[in-house]
Amino acid sequence: MATLQLATWATNLKYEDLPASVVEAAVKSFYNWAGCAIGGSAQDAPKIARETMQSFSGGPTTSSILGADGSEKLADAQLAAFVNGISSHVDDYDDTHLDSLIHPSGPVASALLAVAEWTRPVTGHEFITAFVAGVEAECKLGLAVTPDHYTTGWHITSTAGSIGAAVAVGRLLRLDITQMQHAIGVASTQVVGMQEHFGSMTKSFHVGRAAQGGMLAALLAQNQFTSSLQSLEAERGWLHVVSARENASALFDQLGKTWEIEKNSFKPFPCGVVLHPLIDAAIQIHRDMAREGIDFSSAKRVSLQVNSKVLVLTGKTDPTTGLEGKFSLYHAVAVGLLYGEATPTYFTDDAVLDPTTVEFRKKINVTVDDDHFSKSQTEMTVDVDDKTSFYVHVKNALGSLDNPLTDAHMKTKFLDQVSKRLGEARAENAFAAFTNIANMTDVGTLGTLY
Amino acid sequence: MATLQLATWATNLKYEDLPASVVEAAVKSFYNWAGCAIGGSAQDAPKIARETMQSFSGGPTTSSILGADGSEKLADAQLAAFVNGISSHVDDYDDTHLDSLIHPSGPVASALLAVAEWTRPVTGHEFITAFVAGVEAECKLGLAVTPDHYTTGWHITSTAGSIGAAVAVGRLLRLDITQMQHAIGVASTQVVGMQEHFGSMTKSFHVGRAAQGGMLAALLAQNQFTSSLQSLEAERGWLHVVSARENASALFDQLGKTWEIEKNSFKPFPCGVVLHPLIDAAIQIHRDMAREGIDFSSAKRVSLQVNSKVLVLTGKTDPTTGLEGKFSLYHAVAVGLLYGEATPTYFTDDAVLDPTTVEFRKKINVTVDDDHFSKSQTEMTVDVDDKTSFYVHVKNALGSLDNPLTDAHMKTKFLDQVSKRLGEARAENAFAAFTNIANMTDVGTLGTLY
Repeated sequence: MATLQLATWATNLKYEDLPASVVEAAVKSFYNWAGCAIGGSAQDAPKIARETMQSFSGGPTTSSILGADGSEKLADAQLAAFVNGISSHVDDYDDTHLDSLIHPSGPVASALLAVAEWTRPVTGHEFITAFVAGVEAECKLGLAVTPDHYTTGWHITSTAGSIGAAVAVGRLLRLDITQMQHAIGVASTQVVGMQEHFGSMTKSFHVGRAAQGGMLAALLAQNQFTSSLQSLEAERGWLHVVSARENASALFDQLGKTWEIEKNSFKPFPCGVVLHPLIDAAIQIHRDMAREGIDFSSAKRVSLQVNSKVLVLTGKTDPTTGLEGKFSLYHAVAVGLLYGEATPTYFTDDAVLDPTTVEFRKKINVTVDDDHFSKSQTEMTVDVDDKTSFYVHVKNALGSLDNPLTDAHMKTKFLDQVSKRLGEARAENAFAAFTNIANMTDVGTLGTLY
Repeated sequence: MATLQLATWATNLKYEDLPASVVEAAVKSFYNWAGCAIGGSAQDAPKIARETMQSFSGGPTTSSILGADGSEKLADAQLAAFVNGISSHVDDYDDTHLDSLIHPSGPVASALLAVAEWTRPVTGHEFITAFVAGVEAECKLGLAVTPDHYTTGWHITSTAGSIGAAVAVGRLLRLDITQMQHAIGVASTQVVGMQEHFGSMTKSFHVGRAAQGGMLAALLAQNQFTSSLQSLEAERGWLHVVSARENASALFDQLGKTWEIEKNSFKPFPCGVVLHPLIDAAIQIHRDMAREGIDFSSAKRVSLQVNSKVLVLTGKTDPTTGLEGKFSLYHAVAVGLLYGEATPTYFTDDAVLDPTTVEFRKKINVTVDDDHFSKSQTEMTVDVDDKTSFYVHVKNALGSLDNPLTDAHMKTKFLDQVSKRLGEARAENAFAAFTNIANMTDVGTLGTLY
């Protein structure tokens, strides 16, 4: 019954059902996504993806490629969803539903905005309702297979995300319940994303393909394409095939009662969340050292204690590309200590190969201690000489639910990403436009407002 | 090393390396695929798929949609691969690599022909070489995860097929070894297809999406898109994520030494191979009864003994659509006994709902006996009255490797499928054209020859 249960809930969801806090979380998730997509559009991965698929693109050029400009700005909805999905994830700067490790907005918003611009007019209320439906669907599903689905090696953002995208687009298109079951079916049978590709362009490809695949599923269902009606719960369906654990019905009972989007978190640094406490600590020590006028390169030895998972996920000692740098705690700690910040600028190929940083990485020593440190905690000591050392203990990393980014920080993050692509004035306009999404009478005009 | 091993072998494969028997098997596989795609194009699944994706299709209309005509005949390569993949599988009439249960030509040929027509000229030798590379890749990979991958519920034709398609297209595009590793990576991270969708349109969607995804992977790799270089063998890569068993290196050692395409088989009936011994038996008894002038509807009771897997896979007692009819042994046996044949005509929605057939199904009784019956064997008894009964024992079903279709039967099958769509004269021309593929100087002219 899980598929029917999800389809019924999503089909019937109304804007009036959404608590104000849910709308607020949705808007925040959406503009954070947009900032990441615009910022990420400078990377090679979305550029190559667009160039490759452009040969096959046609139909009405209705939908925005975020971060693109002039004649490049619009594409057909399928291509826009694909490229925006990649751009929004490629900097590893997007949102995180910490309980499932899903980055929820990427697949859902990339598909949804492309369709909303194509099937105008869509109101802000309709858009937010569909967006929330998609995010709740993917996160509840993700929780149903957590942790073993992720442990097996699946990239849960895209594997659950294609279903979230289908539900969101299906809700926007006002599919009936049976069509929604078919949309879930076609989306769930496309399982895209394995963790082995972390550190390569294929990681962000996952999100673009999930957006595209989920949208395709909803469009096929709208045209009476059929799938199994029990695609999630059946013995040879999604839950059992991609997981040894499944608890979907119990979680779906909570649809509309507990809201996963309220537990969405936003990254202060463009890399996996397990690196955030480390960078947080490094930046704090950088500030302490700066305050005392101590040259950072004089640090003799950096010692940190972490949960073992941190080392498993980000233990690359010698990254050679920007994408690999995001999976190197050595690189992340080095830039935090040396420069006191860790924006996307520090995760380019050039930054990763910079000799000062490469040299500094060798000073970093890691000890694993699972008894005292969760993945969001660390302890860092920097020894300068026999007498001088700096120490910090991070209990709740910046960006975690207990220590979230402030609205001001969220705005700075957005403006930093967008102004690098479109200039400061347009970045301000974009911020005003994207944060106002819920109040729009036609979401399709978004692209004209900045 | 498995990924590198496969990439190296496929990149270096030459036409001169192929034994004559391999070329012969490849040509047979290819024209059987073409016949199935042309015949299957009459179904709703490929029609809806095309209609849905047509909105996004653009670029040069270089590639044939098999079975389409006039202004509908050509599309861009991505759309053609998608639609042909669906058409070639939707009738469940395509080829079968029995050891892995992969239907090998669907994903590979659908991607390859579309690209060959787009990147003209491609010679027949180049085409066959790439085709064999793709088929060997998917079948060896499939064997590496057999049987547990299939048992888990994956539709192995598409899950392994997207990798086969990527290898084939990659070989055609003359990717270098590293690019080929990336192509395998991007293809392998897109795992499409669960058995839960058997009996719905999504079953054939799997094959179209695998063709499209594999092609996309090769095109991205050609444009320097990156993935993991160890996408198959890594701990969080394809083999371990989709299977508890993996033996790729051992199987890849046999690449170019043993040829899986020689073990490809061709279906006499448009449904899963487990139904073939039953239909074979039913048609034999139909002939025996006809010879004695006995009215088929006078049969009182039909008894058959089968392997338990047959009942698990095809136990639907009351199918209501043509696609469901392919998963009902009751329907398949009924049409075989009543009509003495089982062509696609007998697996339409109308045929499945025909009152005579529906009534006849109730006479069929199945006994499971795993000790005496493999999946390709059956025993059938039809009781007419107290004194008269007919009996047949099928040891090797028609279409199995020990009882393959003759060339004449293959031709009849092709002409039957194609003439229904394009008329008899064009069917004859198409047969001449597709069977001559290996000798062509420009495969891109295929579509003009019939």
